[in-house]
Amino acid sequence: MKFSIHSSLDYVVSNPATILCSLSCVTTEGQFVLEEKLSTNREADLSEIALGLTSNRYYVASVNEPGDFSLNYEALVDSCPRTKGYQSVQDSRINSLDADTIPFLFPSRYCQSDLFRDEASRIFGQIRGQLATAIAVESWLKQEIEYISGASNEGSSALETFQNQSGVCRDFAHLGIAMCRALTIPARYVTVYAHGLTPQDFHAVCEVYVGGQWYVMDGTGLAPLNGMVRIGTGRDASDAAVATLFGGVGGAGVSVQSDVADSETEEFIPVFRDDLLQRDEVLYLL
Amino acid sequence: MKFSIHSSLDYVVSNPATILCSLSCVTTEGQFVLEEKLSTNREADLSEIALGLTSNRYYVASVNEPGDFSLNYEALVDSCPRTKGYQSVQDSRINSLDADTIPFLFPSRYCQSDLFRDEASRIFGQIRGQLATAIAVESWLKQEIEYISGASNEGSSALETFQNQSGVCRDFAHLGIAMCRALTIPARYVTVYAHGLTPQDFHAVCEVYVGGQWYVMDGTGLAPLNGMVRIGTGRDASDAAVATLFGGVGGAGVSVQSDVADSETEEFIPVFRDDLLQRDEVLYLL
Amino acid sequence: MKFSIHSSLDYVVSNPATILCSLSCVTTEGQFVLEEKLSTNREADLSEIALGLTSNRYYVASVNEPGDFSLNYEALVDSCPRTKGYQSVQDSRINSLDADTIPFLFPSRYCQSDLFRDEASRIFGQIRGQLATAIAVESWLKQEIEYISGASNEGSSALETFQNQSGVCRDFAHLGIAMCRALTIPARYVTVYAHGLTPQDFHAVCEVYVGGQWYVMDGTGLAPLNGMVRIGTGRDASDAAVATLFGGVGGAGVSVQSDVADSETEEFIPVFRDDLLQRDEVLYLL
Amino acid sequence: MKFSIHSSLDYVVSNPATILCSLSCVTTEGQFVLEEKLSTNREADLSEIALGLTSNRYYVASVNEPGDFSLNYEALVDSCPRTKGYQSVQDSRINSLDADTIPFLFPSRYCQSDLFRDEASRIFGQIRGQLATAIAVESWLKQEIEYISGASNEGSSALETFQNQSGVCRDFAHLGIAMCRALTIPARYVTVYAHGLTPQDFHAVCEVYVGGQWYVMDGTGLAPLNGMVRIGTGRDASDAAVATLFGGVGGAGVSVQSDVADSETEEFIPVFRDDLLQRDEVLYLL
Repeated sequence: MKFSIHSSLDYVVSNPATILCSLSCVTTEGQFVLEEKLSTNREADLSEIALGLTSNRYYVASVNEPGDFSLNYEALVDSCPRTKGYQSVQDSRINSLDADTIPFLFPSRYCQSDLFRDEASRIFGQIRGQLATAIAVESWLKQEIEYISGASNEGSSALETFQNQSGVCRDFAHLGIAMCRALTIPARYVTVYAHGLTPQDFHAVCEVYVGGQWYVMDGTGLAPLNGMVRIGTGRDASDAAVATLFGGVGGAGVSVQSDVADSETEEFIPVFRDDLLQRDEVLYLL
Repeated sequence: MKFSIHSSLDYVVSNPATILCSLSCVTTEGQFVLEEKLSTNREADLSEIALGLTSNRYYVASVNEPGDFSLNYEALVDSCPRTKGYQSVQDSRINSLDADTIPFLFPSRYCQSDLFRDEASRIFGQIRGQLATAIAVESWLKQEIEYISGASNEGSSALETFQNQSGVCRDFAHLGIAMCRALTIPARYVTVYAHGLTPQDFHAVCEVYVGGQWYVMDGTGLAPLNGMVRIGTGRDASDAAVATLFGGVGGAGVSVQSDVADSETEEFIPVFRDDLLQRDEVLYLL
Repeated sequence: MKFSIHSSLDYVVSNPATILCSLSCVTTEGQFVLEEKLSTNREADLSEIALGLTSNRYYVASVNEPGDFSLNYEALVDSCPRTKGYQSVQDSRINSLDADTIPFLFPSRYCQSDLFRDEASRIFGQIRGQLATAIAVESWLKQEIEYISGASNEGSSALETFQNQSGVCRDFAHLGIAMCRALTIPARYVTVYAHGLTPQDFHAVCEVYVGGQWYVMDGTGLAPLNGMVRIGTGRDASDAAVATLFGGVGGAGVSVQSDVADSETEEFIPVFRDDLLQRDEVLYLL
Repeated sequence: MKFSIHSSLDYVVSNPATILCSLSCVTTEGQFVLEEKLSTNREADLSEIALGLTSNRYYVASVNEPGDFSLNYEALVDSCPRTKGYQSVQDSRINSLDADTIPFLFPSRYCQSDLFRDEASRIFGQIRGQLATAIAVESWLKQEIEYISGASNEGSSALETFQNQSGVCRDFAHLGIAMCRALTIPARYVTVYAHGLTPQDFHAVCEVYVGGQWYVMDGTGLAPLNGMVRIGTGRDASDAAVATLFGGVGGAGVSVQSDVADSETEEFIPVFRDDLLQRDEVLYLL
């Protein structure tokens, strides 16, 4: 399915500033960027850089003169998430994992998996199978954590989300990742454009690695799994923040829009994992 | 300066085929892709892959049904080639070269530098300084090799160009690279969109590494050095071919266009290196 | 100076287990591994893997049968740390940092730099110059944090060290890194074999990036800066843990030894940074 | 099986020189370096660098004073080549190949596959299956090319070997690679320590990629396939030369020794591929 993406980030610059922003879509095995356009409301020094283990794309914009500054991004992306039969997924053994996967077993800034060993074992220790375990984590998030806008801030981590039992998409993802890593399932953080999210905003989900493949999990259940377009991937939000600001600059607004851009009528996959499993399907993206 | 790029590759498909093509512009320290659009005249399986030491961008298009097939690429690119004073460039010592540079000292398919040691030493051995040597190679190409369309084919290498004393841009680049490597100067092959080339086509030049920086050399003198937009980089054309065809497919046409896209009136740098040197400038790109 | 390194890790295996361990020395611009030997007290499935942004070397040992298991590592390493004049070091601008450096500005598991912005600014905000700031952080650690064996555990982070004002080498490094990143100075965690450390153990220090170079800082002052041999590098201990255990295995002991192995009599550099600065020298390693 | 490796390279230095040499063994999925030692007969500036698509290990030795210079390398390597059933190997489709594999389809300095399309198609075009084709190329090399010491030199390529119908191991490998690539089978060059080779020397073989795995092919039949220890991998000898010399230095001798170093009595696999196939086995290494 093709999606027309449009996002913009607005800032007020007071002193020379550099903005590192991850809002461009990546081309992967599961999606292809057909068109892309970056524009700014005024002259800026622009470059692009690939950062981190998964080579996330970042635009680097430096502005010297004070005033408003806006980055505007448009893209046309063909997204082809694949499904795999639930029954065919086998556990991964630790010593079969490679260098691209092992780092996603380690604790990170917002996913202190080392502190969740006992809790994770107590809640999920009886479940057999890594994929079943990850799906149980997703279901548990849906039941136990309440989605409350403004319930958390940029410094909130999985630990606080677990204690407060509330958060936004970022927090659901962080807690899911921390639980999975504590159970020796590699897990990572993904930022996406999510079609059907209300209100429209950047979205964050969790991906788990089982049997040679990364599967998307979304404890918020707020957007269809096959309506997502991948932006960045990382250990947690510290690796894949939409924007990191340096110098004299403050945020003034964010706008995000994702529309279906082709005439094919394709069914959006229900957010309830049970429905997927009844069809013996587990969605995955790469 | 901003350039509006437009290129298209036309094919006739007889049997299932895969086309690997390098026609998209890269974002580097010296240029930034502001807009980009890939389209095809009919449905194809499209993906993108980064290949080789310099992570060249390749589109991979697979087509199953017979018939015409066209890839159409458009981009808006901001190009900011920098200049450096000729006097300030110092020689590189071998044991200061890093892993990104050393492989460009080795011989390659179309640049058999190992076979040019004696000739290179005979012709250029008296010149002091690596940059002066590379510029002498560029001047020698201008004087000794005649640009003749159709004088060579896809299998032609530096050896044949040296023997035949004629070739096209690809052959000038290959011979320049072979000579420089034979003189222990790292050299590589670059494909570009070149503004002002008549007739418009993909262009190829040579880059040499001296004193920590890659400098563009173009023995053909057919296009201004600051009118180039980088596509791919490699050891020679085998690393950076515009298109590689697999299966039942044949070429049917190529079209290339590069236009100035901003209102700034910037001077195109004269193709004669002497003029640049008199201004104590050596153009470089990254 | 050449160092003869010897370390061993002892375990008790109860069930099939995999041990991921980082105890081998790396070859860098500043050190060269001349000899190396890994042995185990019994048969194990051994492999090696390079992980993370800095390609740390990890041995992966899998053991199935219960019982004692020991990894024994010996190496002969030539270490040549370089010095640079303090006066010649210039600040780095954000938009000159590259992809190898920027991730070390982001917060990480044990270095929550995002939570230290206000404190860092309050304590160090008046100091001009990035290197002077980093040296002030090192001095502050020496004065404010008490080295107490057993004062912290594997889950301790910079936040707790800051609150408790005590810790071990790992904690000094984490707090120094968090402070530097909060001040927009890239900082990373390094594990080393440290000659002269009493008692002998693995050691951890902090590295800061200023003016194109990484400089070692060690707030503990427990070992001479030119007696260190680099093992691993990372964002913090989560990236560069000496050992990570999976499955039925527990630690039973660690032994570390680093001896001078050549007859050259070279002076160990005093641990007091002031002495170095008076000689206009700042030690750095790569 | 464990092998004790010993090699030395002797040189005479007349002027300051740098030697880039690839003689150290790599740790891969199929082999593990347990011990390793590099020594020189006198002081030299030593470093290590990883080059090329496959990160080959190179020692870089710089010597300023004239006189004899020797590099001496010793290693203990555990080699565990795996076998796979011939019947279970399936063809790879072009658009399933990844960035690590595609470059090995392109022509290179000594393997001008682009010039072998017609010949390769004429000789091997009737054979079904990529692995069967590669094995046919190996058999053809055994029958058509005569192993003659001194029949070729460092500049010899697949083209000359094909014309002269004679060569050494390097030439067999190059011609095999050129033929396979011409038939759209990814193929690469591997340098190895080969147990049982008479006289003992560095050895070179070809690897082909079929169905997700690289398989060793050796048209010389001079050494058992499971007695090889991998040194370097590349497109051809230009990527994986044992030594490349810069400056005032000339070769004075090479010595190589590979001995079985454990008491296990393991059968060396017969060099005749037919015997392997009758056991439904195809050896592979990684």
